[in-house]
Amino acid sequence: MKRKEIVNLKINRSFIFEKESEKVKKNPIVIVGLPGIGLVGKIVADYLIKQLKAKRFAVFYSPAFPPQVIMRKNGKVRMLSYRFYHARVSSQEFVFLVGDIQPFEQDWQYSVCKDILDYLSQFKPKEIITIGGYGTNQFIQKPRVLGAANSKQEIKEYEKLGVAFGEAKGGIIGAAGLFVAMGYFYGIPAICLMGETHGAYVDANAAKAVLEVIAKRFRMKIDYSELEEKVKFTERAMQEIEEELKKMQQPKGKENLTYFR
Amino acid sequence: MKRKEIVNLKINRSFIFEKESEKVKKNPIVIVGLPGIGLVGKIVADYLIKQLKAKRFAVFYSPAFPPQVIMRKNGKVRMLSYRFYHARVSSQEFVFLVGDIQPFEQDWQYSVCKDILDYLSQFKPKEIITIGGYGTNQFIQKPRVLGAANSKQEIKEYEKLGVAFGEAKGGIIGAAGLFVAMGYFYGIPAICLMGETHGAYVDANAAKAVLEVIAKRFRMKIDYSELEEKVKFTERAMQEIEEELKKMQQPKGKENLTYFR
Amino acid sequence: MKRKEIVNLKINRSFIFEKESEKVKKNPIVIVGLPGIGLVGKIVADYLIKQLKAKRFAVFYSPAFPPQVIMRKNGKVRMLSYRFYHARVSSQEFVFLVGDIQPFEQDWQYSVCKDILDYLSQFKPKEIITIGGYGTNQFIQKPRVLGAANSKQEIKEYEKLGVAFGEAKGGIIGAAGLFVAMGYFYGIPAICLMGETHGAYVDANAAKAVLEVIAKRFRMKIDYSELEEKVKFTERAMQEIEEELKKMQQPKGKENLTYFR
Amino acid sequence: MKRKEIVNLKINRSFIFEKESEKVKKNPIVIVGLPGIGLVGKIVADYLIKQLKAKRFAVFYSPAFPPQVIMRKNGKVRMLSYRFYHARVSSQEFVFLVGDIQPFEQDWQYSVCKDILDYLSQFKPKEIITIGGYGTNQFIQKPRVLGAANSKQEIKEYEKLGVAFGEAKGGIIGAAGLFVAMGYFYGIPAICLMGETHGAYVDANAAKAVLEVIAKRFRMKIDYSELEEKVKFTERAMQEIEEELKKMQQPKGKENLTYFR
Repeated sequence: MKRKEIVNLKINRSFIFEKESEKVKKNPIVIVGLPGIGLVGKIVADYLIKQLKAKRFAVFYSPAFPPQVIMRKNGKVRMLSYRFYHARVSSQEFVFLVGDIQPFEQDWQYSVCKDILDYLSQFKPKEIITIGGYGTNQFIQKPRVLGAANSKQEIKEYEKLGVAFGEAKGGIIGAAGLFVAMGYFYGIPAICLMGETHGAYVDANAAKAVLEVIAKRFRMKIDYSELEEKVKFTERAMQEIEEELKKMQQPKGKENLTYFR
Repeated sequence: MKRKEIVNLKINRSFIFEKESEKVKKNPIVIVGLPGIGLVGKIVADYLIKQLKAKRFAVFYSPAFPPQVIMRKNGKVRMLSYRFYHARVSSQEFVFLVGDIQPFEQDWQYSVCKDILDYLSQFKPKEIITIGGYGTNQFIQKPRVLGAANSKQEIKEYEKLGVAFGEAKGGIIGAAGLFVAMGYFYGIPAICLMGETHGAYVDANAAKAVLEVIAKRFRMKIDYSELEEKVKFTERAMQEIEEELKKMQQPKGKENLTYFR
Repeated sequence: MKRKEIVNLKINRSFIFEKESEKVKKNPIVIVGLPGIGLVGKIVADYLIKQLKAKRFAVFYSPAFPPQVIMRKNGKVRMLSYRFYHARVSSQEFVFLVGDIQPFEQDWQYSVCKDILDYLSQFKPKEIITIGGYGTNQFIQKPRVLGAANSKQEIKEYEKLGVAFGEAKGGIIGAAGLFVAMGYFYGIPAICLMGETHGAYVDANAAKAVLEVIAKRFRMKIDYSELEEKVKFTERAMQEIEEELKKMQQPKGKENLTYFR
Repeated sequence: MKRKEIVNLKINRSFIFEKESEKVKKNPIVIVGLPGIGLVGKIVADYLIKQLKAKRFAVFYSPAFPPQVIMRKNGKVRMLSYRFYHARVSSQEFVFLVGDIQPFEQDWQYSVCKDILDYLSQFKPKEIITIGGYGTNQFIQKPRVLGAANSKQEIKEYEKLGVAFGEAKGGIIGAAGLFVAMGYFYGIPAICLMGETHGAYVDANAAKAVLEVIAKRFRMKIDYSELEEKVKFTERAMQEIEEELKKMQQPKGKENLTYFR
């Protein structure tokens, strides 16, 4: 077993383990789908990864994530992580960023975002699209896709596709907002696409609405037939996880971590 | 879209995005009005910015602030920030510092204060004035202005203008106090002016009392006719914000941030 | 009294005080037994240290641990720490890592783990074995030993010894999991051995099950006759500690730490 | 007003403002009296400073302390701080360390302690004595002085003076313990002297018991006639402070710190 080559990031001991980053083509469109409202972002990104047969090329590890490892069925462990995939559609490269969890500590949110933008800069991204849900607390038959961007150019582009700007109110918490706002300083046009969703359950409809915008924009052919199944799977997986979380092999209370001898 | 030039600050990854800092004249009076008791500081600084038609020249971003972006009506996003403005009155330059929020974490309070003093040092400030409210829990017809300074020189200057020293008791929490105390080590005379206020509501009277001291000191002509309106606007805005905060597109509970796949 | 030579670790001001590290032979098997579920890890490692007459060669101190010192019966104090021991069995070197407590802050968990792996790297460890308990909330007559590893090689090796892989579910919190997962990047084969245990009490049975696996693997002769006694001692010690913790000379509430003069 | 010369410490932005450190003689005995149980440490150190007419020579500021300033009766502000005094008795130099507050965050406790030991090292201290209270929850007529040290040499020295070793149980939280334990690595003999005290009130008796040990050890002549008064003053001051803390000019709740415009 050999020592692995890793990329030590500048901030706070996060690091990236690269598999095949040299295969990523320049000027990709980056699509970010991290856990959030209605899991819309996660479902959209996971679905695109599967449909486009995207390949994993790098993994991001960070003390920003809880210090626990996941036990896999094959007997191995893995740390919580963000994962980078890439795929091509026609002649356009796409990079997908998915992950297990967002940092709880607010300053880690900034660190992780900056670390990842620094890393992605080597590929000179053409655009960053973050996906999220926009919680309405209502059941919506035909969810709209709301947008918030970092440049006029992005707003124009997506207004053509029916995305509504200036209608989402309040703030966007976490990565979906920070990548767009911080992307500005890196000179990368960026947009957050939010599917309207109730907010309290995993939502296939909201995911489909966002997928349709992306498909139209980049002329992707997406087969939606497995989306319902994906959503069901995701719901089941989440239930399992919640049960596992309860069972999780954690010391019961702080006392058990302490022992003076 | 080009990569932006930013000023990386020495401490903890905060950074400043400069628009026209080269236009700021040397030896300004710095007036700090950040959110605090009765929003007195914020109202005073915002009102002076409007009355003096001050121009924004720099914006300060920091992991000290919550990791969320504000969605604006024009479809764009912005990060939480502190903003620097400048204006001239007669031959005296003024710099105003206003912002959305103060850091919650106590060590970030020191970092942000030190970062900003380091940044401002290039302009060799002649004086720093922080504005705050002094909560009394009572309704006061004729609010006094209380002062706390970092030098005898400042106390003398403001006693002439009717500011009461040694009467405010206890401590000043956050930026209004730290800028004055830390200013001492930068060799900058500094004072905190506190308008007496109930503390539980946004207070035009307290703001006016402080504005009058500043106007007298620097021979500014201030039109107070829009102050009431400003206060009403601020109250309305705050209500809106509170509502928006409730609606805010945040994951509901930590669970939604987590998803093991 | 002379100034002591210490090893300043790269991250966050932790440091190591070495007694006789130069006596540690290359390519040790590292066995980690830190406080956790059912204190299985701690009991196993402490028991091996005693049985093999292992010698302490280094102590790790860190701001990750609570800022308190333990008063010893000889009138001296000691800081909370992790301690390194070594012993030989046949021609194989073993290093044991035991300690008082695991860090509460999640990013410190990563720092401490990385610091220690960096330190251990000088000895070029052949393998890392972390010991833990796997809480079942049930009383188990014949506890199994469950495994989670960072390589196929480890899984194969321990399957031969009856360790069950892929049956433990969920996650492993803290050092027992992180050393295995992070060991991968250092190129060190690593495994977490978990004895099935109720979780709510100190468990000799679970400890014995794990000890038997280790004994078989490395052809150690272990005398189990003192294990029951050790467990009873550990239980008593913990009760004492809990009582002492209550009596502990700590300021009562935050107020007592504050005094403005 | 000139920029002040300060000593930037290595860790985390704490700094020291020196007044007359060059007057401190080599090889002082350092006596540490920070806020803690029964305020024993603070009273003892303050009393010695007054009796020996010790002079302040340096002030320590740190983001480890709450970000608030104290408003003084003379109209000036001061940050929370630790303060260094020095005095001579016969030909022996003494340095006293007193302060407002101990850090709440546990890793800051270590940082502050290390920063101060690094700073004090320039004077090559001969010994460090930290003063504390040992809470018994009982009213004690004749309080003993309990000791915990970092070397046999110290134990021997103080046993002669009637200090009891090995009788205090549990741990010592905060600076009183850390200075002793970390002093070991700096090669400085150190001891924590704890006066037995109820723990729930400010205790002149416990303070006197510790003062007597110090007086005997260093052949100081101490006039105890003002000690009762000092304790009454301290009690009054604390009540005032508690009232002031309630009135303290702090934003009410986190909401008031926030304002999106």
